[in-house]
Amino acid sequence: MSDMDEYFRKREELMLKDRALRYDHATDREPSADELVADKVLRDIRAAEADSVWDPNCKTEHPQGSQQMFPGMEFLTARATIMSTRLFAILSKMPKGGLLHAHLDATVRVDVLLELAMKHPAIHVRAPGKLSAGNFKMVLPEFRALPQAQWTQILSITDPSYEPNTWVPLKNARNNFSDALGGPEGFDCWVVGALMIEPAEAYGTHNSTAKIWEKFESTFRVSDGLIRFVPVWTEYVREFLLSSIEDGISYVEPRILFWSKHMVGADGEENVPHRVWLQMYERVLNEVRASLEAQGRADEFVGSKIIYSTLRIGTPEELEWYTEDCLALKQEFPHLIAGFDIVGHEDSLEPLIKYADVFLRSKERQKELGVDIPFVFHAGETLGDGTAADANLYDAILLGTKRIGHGFSIYKHPHLMEICREKGICIEMCPISNEILRLTGSMPMHPLPAIMNHGVHVALCSDDPAVFGNMGLTFDFFQVFVASEVNGLNTLRELVWDSIRFSNLNEQEKDHALSLLARRWAQFVRRIVEEYGVSDAAGKPKN
Amino acid sequence: MSDMDEYFRKREELMLKDRALRYDHATDREPSADELVADKVLRDIRAAEADSVWDPNCKTEHPQGSQQMFPGMEFLTARATIMSTRLFAILSKMPKGGLLHAHLDATVRVDVLLELAMKHPAIHVRAPGKLSAGNFKMVLPEFRALPQAQWTQILSITDPSYEPNTWVPLKNARNNFSDALGGPEGFDCWVVGALMIEPAEAYGTHNSTAKIWEKFESTFRVSDGLIRFVPVWTEYVREFLLSSIEDGISYVEPRILFWSKHMVGADGEENVPHRVWLQMYERVLNEVRASLEAQGRADEFVGSKIIYSTLRIGTPEELEWYTEDCLALKQEFPHLIAGFDIVGHEDSLEPLIKYADVFLRSKERQKELGVDIPFVFHAGETLGDGTAADANLYDAILLGTKRIGHGFSIYKHPHLMEICREKGICIEMCPISNEILRLTGSMPMHPLPAIMNHGVHVALCSDDPAVFGNMGLTFDFFQVFVASEVNGLNTLRELVWDSIRFSNLNEQEKDHALSLLARRWAQFVRRIVEEYGVSDAAGKPKN
Repeated sequence: MSDMDEYFRKREELMLKDRALRYDHATDREPSADELVADKVLRDIRAAEADSVWDPNCKTEHPQGSQQMFPGMEFLTARATIMSTRLFAILSKMPKGGLLHAHLDATVRVDVLLELAMKHPAIHVRAPGKLSAGNFKMVLPEFRALPQAQWTQILSITDPSYEPNTWVPLKNARNNFSDALGGPEGFDCWVVGALMIEPAEAYGTHNSTAKIWEKFESTFRVSDGLIRFVPVWTEYVREFLLSSIEDGISYVEPRILFWSKHMVGADGEENVPHRVWLQMYERVLNEVRASLEAQGRADEFVGSKIIYSTLRIGTPEELEWYTEDCLALKQEFPHLIAGFDIVGHEDSLEPLIKYADVFLRSKERQKELGVDIPFVFHAGETLGDGTAADANLYDAILLGTKRIGHGFSIYKHPHLMEICREKGICIEMCPISNEILRLTGSMPMHPLPAIMNHGVHVALCSDDPAVFGNMGLTFDFFQVFVASEVNGLNTLRELVWDSIRFSNLNEQEKDHALSLLARRWAQFVRRIVEEYGVSDAAGKPKN
Repeated sequence: MSDMDEYFRKREELMLKDRALRYDHATDREPSADELVADKVLRDIRAAEADSVWDPNCKTEHPQGSQQMFPGMEFLTARATIMSTRLFAILSKMPKGGLLHAHLDATVRVDVLLELAMKHPAIHVRAPGKLSAGNFKMVLPEFRALPQAQWTQILSITDPSYEPNTWVPLKNARNNFSDALGGPEGFDCWVVGALMIEPAEAYGTHNSTAKIWEKFESTFRVSDGLIRFVPVWTEYVREFLLSSIEDGISYVEPRILFWSKHMVGADGEENVPHRVWLQMYERVLNEVRASLEAQGRADEFVGSKIIYSTLRIGTPEELEWYTEDCLALKQEFPHLIAGFDIVGHEDSLEPLIKYADVFLRSKERQKELGVDIPFVFHAGETLGDGTAADANLYDAILLGTKRIGHGFSIYKHPHLMEICREKGICIEMCPISNEILRLTGSMPMHPLPAIMNHGVHVALCSDDPAVFGNMGLTFDFFQVFVASEVNGLNTLRELVWDSIRFSNLNEQEKDHALSLLARRWAQFVRRIVEEYGVSDAAGKPKN
């Protein structure tokens, strides 16, 4: 053996050892013949589009002026380009498995939400000041469904006579929105701007995590009045389920925020308790299932469970009300309640340690009652190093979290990654969310490869797609796939499989879900092979 | 023991285990009483200034519009603010140990370089086109020292009669720079703009690594004609040494680029060979040492060695000329030549593997000749994952690199970090360089904590301070210190110590350097205690 042969042998050995912990490399399963072809197709298309679509000499409009494009660049300015790619078209057809981290209140396109709301004369809108072209983005709309006795006849929210903070029927406000502010489309623009993060915010004025969270949180304050109204909420849930299924997602495990103790009923009274929320959720779920069955599409969806969430604010005593509430709901809806979490900005709100006592007691209570509600804690969604938000990772693990929501900062913690690997604690990674909320500059800067290379299991998630515009999971898979040349078809497959393996489905449900998934996966791979045949470098379809 | 006591015990244990590999935590050395106080002072000042200086509601002028400030934010827009802080004042007095990664041609402030050049009538400048306010930033100056016979009398580079690409004496070009373009100050502005990276470039128009490298490389093309001229070069070296010493650096190990086979001599002829470069370097070094001795400051500086560098372009045969050249120089200047490296943009130029054969042969030749020139390879200065630039890390390690230049992407490689930890391969981390060259959005996003937490040794370095404006090492220490709450005085100390421990000084030289360092460190810590006393939260001086 020559010196260089020997060198190449050692090099190959070193690379394999370095990637040995990666679960998409360590898999026992032999790829199928179709998978080998499809892997090459995907890699070739990625390489071809890196030049043809993401040419660094092409520029895109950006709040910072025209900027260079590159694979994995900032999502909000790249979105239209992403959708124009062949790779996106392929990934949109991929069966995605489960969606394990999404906040229900931010899962439906905001234009669809507005349409749903428009159907209900009970919904009114008000503004805290006079709207003008100058303050359009600063003055936020507030929505509320009112009891009929409080409905108003006010015609316009932009008329000079409009008294700030008085309610205007939604339809009036939209139809009579002043021409100077763009008429009804101007109204839509105003509302959409308050419900979503725009490129100029994420990449311009709100460039830091702290600042963009101010905008992020405000979108929930605005949408709350639209969503937390029974007639809208039920249709919102339906839309969430259906649009997820359209994107190839076969199971969803949303976090639902039970912070408000009541929802507003159809009569405009805020008196609908949590157990009714779950009854409604289950009804819609069953309706969706039935309609899929009627269409012969039952195999596309295995169902949904819920992670009970409340906010990481308040006293331990206040939190205990929620852990008890969750326990009661679990006893009534054992098949629906699948986890418990506290949510909100980790950097500025309360750390897990503050409530450790409550969580430990809740575990005791679960034992007494013979139920199991795993913790599925947010932790480490931060750029802080050694801060309380970073330390949430320690507590999440010590408290026995089943998965970690975000876990962004875990790549800095070798021992915690080791524990996650050994105990099978999966990280719910939300790459586009991380980028827009300024934890990472772009996907090539994202620590996901470090986490995967340490053998930690990951489920890709969308977090708050209504706010970010990353509906479904295709966008997140796209951004991840283009940002690393290590990623191949098997990476996608393992991410998809993990989203079922680490879900809160029971073993029998998982087996069922995985067998359906395997069949759809084979079809997906087959279609790639049929359409792109023996791949050529340009990734052009065969015909 | 109550449940919570038990919980806190386990929590503490977990945190310690997670940080056990960090060498600043694992140290056997007990901190001195002064160090304990100084550590608290530094942490308190950091916390106080995070609010008072880096208030997220304060804004800074930024190419993206006014933006929020935060500790560790983008260096080019933060620089003036950094310099206004108490923390910066303290760190500027810190003894820094060795500077292990800096490219000589970018180590002296560009205004100082311009001043040095102005003294030499041989130096001429030309422009490839007519200069106007509109193309000021696009038309780059070219400098060259000419033999006297070729000196010109041309008066102005901005006169309408100026013929593009004709040489103008530097003094004329500056003195007669058109008023419309700002006169002599306008000339300085033109030159400085071509030699440095401006915020609008790094954070605006050149936002990607690929694009900002275009600008970065062009600064070297422009400065080459000024620096590679014996009378300027020798003063440049002197300035580099003196300014480093002023910043508390006691040893420098610059990479000198030997790509050009000759330097331009005082007579304007390009005929000064490499061995004369080293003779000149040594002469200046001795002069600096003598002058320090004369001032009673000999303890501030232990000397300098050189890492022979050439570019990562060309054929293996061409590279072999340089490995042989380096060998010859090593035999003549065994005390000066301390390493070998190839430099340039890893993403677009040649990978180490292309030259592996040459490197292996060079090691054989060293054995034959009984000399040792360690490799000190650049590797992994990339956002690529699984790309050739990322794979340079495998080759650097297999080829036996003593340290790794940048090694930015190593945080993704668990096994490589393990090897570095076990073999004592130190990473030359250049945090400000990484940020400006767009490998990271800001310091809180930088993977340095991940690397340190994996127990890998790190030396902080400035890379190309003339281009970035991070003169000395104070800025880099500052950015690192404010970006993590794990960092304390002992982190600084270990980083400083490692920069000597992992230098190419021999064991005896290291012992000497470390004993001098220990004395200066104690003084530095004492001064913090004396000035800030028992720290108060606002970090105000005692008196």
